[in-house]
Amino acid sequence: MKDSSVQYSRKINYYETDQMGIVHHSNYIRFFEEARLMLLDEKLMDYAKMEELGIIIPVTFVECKYLVPVHYGDEIVIDTCMTKFDGIKMEVSYRIYQKDSEVLCTTGKSGHCFLDAEMKPIRMKRRFPELYEKLKGLVENIE
Amino acid sequence: MKDSSVQYSRKINYYETDQMGIVHHSNYIRFFEEARLMLLDEKLMDYAKMEELGIIIPVTFVECKYLVPVHYGDEIVIDTCMTKFDGIKMEVSYRIYQKDSEVLCTTGKSGHCFLDAEMKPIRMKRRFPELYEKLKGLVENIE
Amino acid sequence: MKDSSVQYSRKINYYETDQMGIVHHSNYIRFFEEARLMLLDEKLMDYAKMEELGIIIPVTFVECKYLVPVHYGDEIVIDTCMTKFDGIKMEVSYRIYQKDSEVLCTTGKSGHCFLDAEMKPIRMKRRFPELYEKLKGLVENIE
Amino acid sequence: MKDSSVQYSRKINYYETDQMGIVHHSNYIRFFEEARLMLLDEKLMDYAKMEELGIIIPVTFVECKYLVPVHYGDEIVIDTCMTKFDGIKMEVSYRIYQKDSEVLCTTGKSGHCFLDAEMKPIRMKRRFPELYEKLKGLVENIE
Repeated sequence: MKDSSVQYSRKINYYETDQMGIVHHSNYIRFFEEARLMLLDEKLMDYAKMEELGIIIPVTFVECKYLVPVHYGDEIVIDTCMTKFDGIKMEVSYRIYQKDSEVLCTTGKSGHCFLDAEMKPIRMKRRFPELYEKLKGLVENIE
Repeated sequence: MKDSSVQYSRKINYYETDQMGIVHHSNYIRFFEEARLMLLDEKLMDYAKMEELGIIIPVTFVECKYLVPVHYGDEIVIDTCMTKFDGIKMEVSYRIYQKDSEVLCTTGKSGHCFLDAEMKPIRMKRRFPELYEKLKGLVENIE
Repeated sequence: MKDSSVQYSRKINYYETDQMGIVHHSNYIRFFEEARLMLLDEKLMDYAKMEELGIIIPVTFVECKYLVPVHYGDEIVIDTCMTKFDGIKMEVSYRIYQKDSEVLCTTGKSGHCFLDAEMKPIRMKRRFPELYEKLKGLVENIE
Repeated sequence: MKDSSVQYSRKINYYETDQMGIVHHSNYIRFFEEARLMLLDEKLMDYAKMEELGIIIPVTFVECKYLVPVHYGDEIVIDTCMTKFDGIKMEVSYRIYQKDSEVLCTTGKSGHCFLDAEMKPIRMKRRFPELYEKLKGLVENIE
């Protein structure tokens, strides 16, 4: 699980709360994005550069389970891991903890495809063989 | 689509786009909330009043599939329907279309529980029997 | 004041509140944008079409005074009016009321310039004379 | 730049961009909040604790000038400084730079008051004399 995962930390901002006094549930989808782009940046290639190369990686699905709410001022850690890659699509999974705690607050998963600037699918193996090998490597490292 | 569903319409705002030129995927979770609260307002009770009565309805899970992207200026319709209610939890499902089009853009589902102001679960049947009956009726109407 | 202004109405969404139980102050800047784009759509040209023509209208400054807070479920009206246009820059002003009330909740102002797709300034008079005349007309109508 | 200021750094997130390809202007108001709360946390008292003590510090006005746009992946520094405090109101000012650059991207200012949990004004000198002295000290330190 190690090599293909990152632990992304961040504090909760005031504007991320709602009138229930907890983080609004939509914001976790944004936290997932922050963590996923850190994973890509560290393990694959800076995502801003990927977009310059003409690769965009939109989200095809997202799932999130809210177990324990998170509050303003909390510091969270998002355990983030690439779980699937078949050359055309990939999946990333997320587990959010309070920093320095074993309590699991949120789990989630997102699906992605690889598109060019015209929003057409990219065959990664043919067009970007080096990135393809890296992506395969990330998933093979699992378990 | 039956008595237990609402069709919620809204325009896409500029600030809801991202640099891909489409609506950022996290915003659909917010559109779902808008539609769900309209469903509660119309079929059950004004949600602001429910919170005054001490009932809060947080999200326990959310799922979203992104089929066709939506753009700034588009007008969308969100077909929203309560699909499960067992006295303690409920589920709501969503289908987003472009207005005046058959094209399905997004589907989703959310799960909810009923809590009091101290974030303790509420047994709706005992504490709020009228709301309980209405909620049951909404789900029975399906198919 | 009439001809050059619009009254834009919208409801407050749950996700626009924060843990103070009121609308987060940053969201008013978004409400201003919604109202401003409605003003452009109705009085000038659909803003999505303007961007297709290669005109973008970024914000150069924004100011907002918070007088009375607004809550989830409230319906607000944003009185929106173009107040300056000199061929290169424009200013828009905003006054937010509770619907069906005289109470002024928020006032604000925003400044804008006209850029092409390469983010270079556009001389509206030369490049888009018809839009230029319309914009001038909007401001002349004031008082 | 004195003792009464902080330099707050953060990266720009993807979801903070809009279809112009730059950070949406409303998000700077949120960056200001992040920086201001860091200033309070470091120089005065953890803001989450202040709210527990029954002090809330809403925003009475905000101003922002957009000089140079900021993009996804950029790292910004927000020079943040308390500029006024009279026992009832305070003002904070902000200057945003690209990290490792002299280029000033955004400037801004925000005004605040001190309210209790019932949204009534607090006389800081009488109710919270220690915080009052600290706040006065912060402003006196300015040149």
